[in-house]
Amino acid sequence: MRLVTFQADGAPRLGAVVDERVIDLARASDGRLPDSMLAFIEAGDSALSEARELVARGGDGVELGRAKLLAPIPRPRKNVFCLGLNYRDHAAEGARAMGIELKLPEHPIYFSKPPTCVIGPNAAIVYDPDVTREVDWEVEFTLVIGRGGRDIPPERVYEHIFGYTVGNDVSARELQFRHGGQWFKGKSLDTFAPIGPWIVTADEVPDPSNLDVSLRVNGVEKQRSNTREFIFDIPAMVSGLAKGITLEAGDLIMTGTPHGVGFARQPPEFLQDGDVVEAEVAGIGVLRNPVSVRRGG
Amino acid sequence: MRLVTFQADGAPRLGAVVDERVIDLARASDGRLPDSMLAFIEAGDSALSEARELVARGGDGVELGRAKLLAPIPRPRKNVFCLGLNYRDHAAEGARAMGIELKLPEHPIYFSKPPTCVIGPNAAIVYDPDVTREVDWEVEFTLVIGRGGRDIPPERVYEHIFGYTVGNDVSARELQFRHGGQWFKGKSLDTFAPIGPWIVTADEVPDPSNLDVSLRVNGVEKQRSNTREFIFDIPAMVSGLAKGITLEAGDLIMTGTPHGVGFARQPPEFLQDGDVVEAEVAGIGVLRNPVSVRRGG
Repeated sequence: MRLVTFQADGAPRLGAVVDERVIDLARASDGRLPDSMLAFIEAGDSALSEARELVARGGDGVELGRAKLLAPIPRPRKNVFCLGLNYRDHAAEGARAMGIELKLPEHPIYFSKPPTCVIGPNAAIVYDPDVTREVDWEVEFTLVIGRGGRDIPPERVYEHIFGYTVGNDVSARELQFRHGGQWFKGKSLDTFAPIGPWIVTADEVPDPSNLDVSLRVNGVEKQRSNTREFIFDIPAMVSGLAKGITLEAGDLIMTGTPHGVGFARQPPEFLQDGDVVEAEVAGIGVLRNPVSVRRGG
Repeated sequence: MRLVTFQADGAPRLGAVVDERVIDLARASDGRLPDSMLAFIEAGDSALSEARELVARGGDGVELGRAKLLAPIPRPRKNVFCLGLNYRDHAAEGARAMGIELKLPEHPIYFSKPPTCVIGPNAAIVYDPDVTREVDWEVEFTLVIGRGGRDIPPERVYEHIFGYTVGNDVSARELQFRHGGQWFKGKSLDTFAPIGPWIVTADEVPDPSNLDVSLRVNGVEKQRSNTREFIFDIPAMVSGLAKGITLEAGDLIMTGTPHGVGFARQPPEFLQDGDVVEAEVAGIGVLRNPVSVRRGG
């Protein structure tokens, strides 16, 4: 299933995309299914089965092209977990751009982005030139945790994944590298975590370790790689994160970005007012966001 | 006021401490005040005034010594914001311990700890020796945001602070320095953010930039300094964080730790099963937590 959060009558609602129409799952189930994605993920397998039956039956709904989609989880209950330098090609370009020796990480690099960063498809990535002038893109295949847990062994990781979506780990580069080596500040500006357009449930993604990942700015391809280029694969990155840390239903994990980011280009390129960024994971979807400038706080 | 979250009849409730008794604010106000700290902070000045009137009248309540206190905000709505290397003395000891040259940070160092780390007073800091054997302490004066906002100028920062509490930024040192330089993993283990025992409202802390901060392990003093030793003072650290990032009611900001942490000692010292840690900020309170070991995931 492709599950969305869409706005109807002002309130966010849980929907499923069927034949390019969005079915309101709570209404179609006479209220047996919850109306929020987080509650649906928490409800587990029985809710998933019921939704699948509804979807198989088809039904009325808003045309997908007319529905206002929000981020699938508009307000995560904690910061989004992120992986850094998790593609060989990106680690290499970063080292080159900074004039340092390439050393592949021996352990996964984790950091976070607050819920205030999250925006949905078509919402604007907004930057204030008094805060940053180096706004960069990072397409990221993004995991959605279903069943929570701690100390999850690698061989059981996939049992904890509800589904997949697309993220853009938008980064203010001068801030990322200015704050004592911790990336948090440069990764955490408002609107700097576009996520969407939907969650594809795990059963429909038979091989998440072989998906093309790409990004275009104004239609020009800037990034292209495949999740098989991960330095730490999904079992390794999730089990590594969950060692000593409880993961919960609805947690989001951005899995790192491949080469082709702006700051590593010669000369460097950054996003500007009016640009349009399309982040894509093949078989998952295209996440499109315009860029706009905000002046004066 | 000293505001607590305490457990009564199984549910967390908002309370105020008066004459060493805990008054249930929702009950005492006939339900006009909310029963959770987050909702109370969001309710703003009118709720604060009403609570102050109730507290002035006194009233019945559980004895403080018998009340089960939780973290003042048991489940923050996002990761706790943290400052790194924000005391001159601690930056120096860290550089010494790692054999590197001391360079004071030119910009504040921010990172985060997930809500799953948060525990209250007297709850156990639990570690699994298969995950970490280098559990270290860090007493931290902790800010609670009241009115939210973005791009807050330094001179208006105090208008956004609801109150203050005590935190312990418990850190797994080998993990902190193993994951490619990002501290997140080593700072984020379950139970590694004790916070409490209460929030003292800002009106009762006339000079937060001159408070003694100390920490004891099994009664032996390990850390002692004063918030006047901050490298980035409260206006600088909060306005720096809020540049481009919306802060929200109930956000927690741990302001960094002074010298005296375990890993910088000769020889290094780490917390062990059965230890008791007391983190104290003078005029705010003492946050006491036992340490215990968990084996086998």
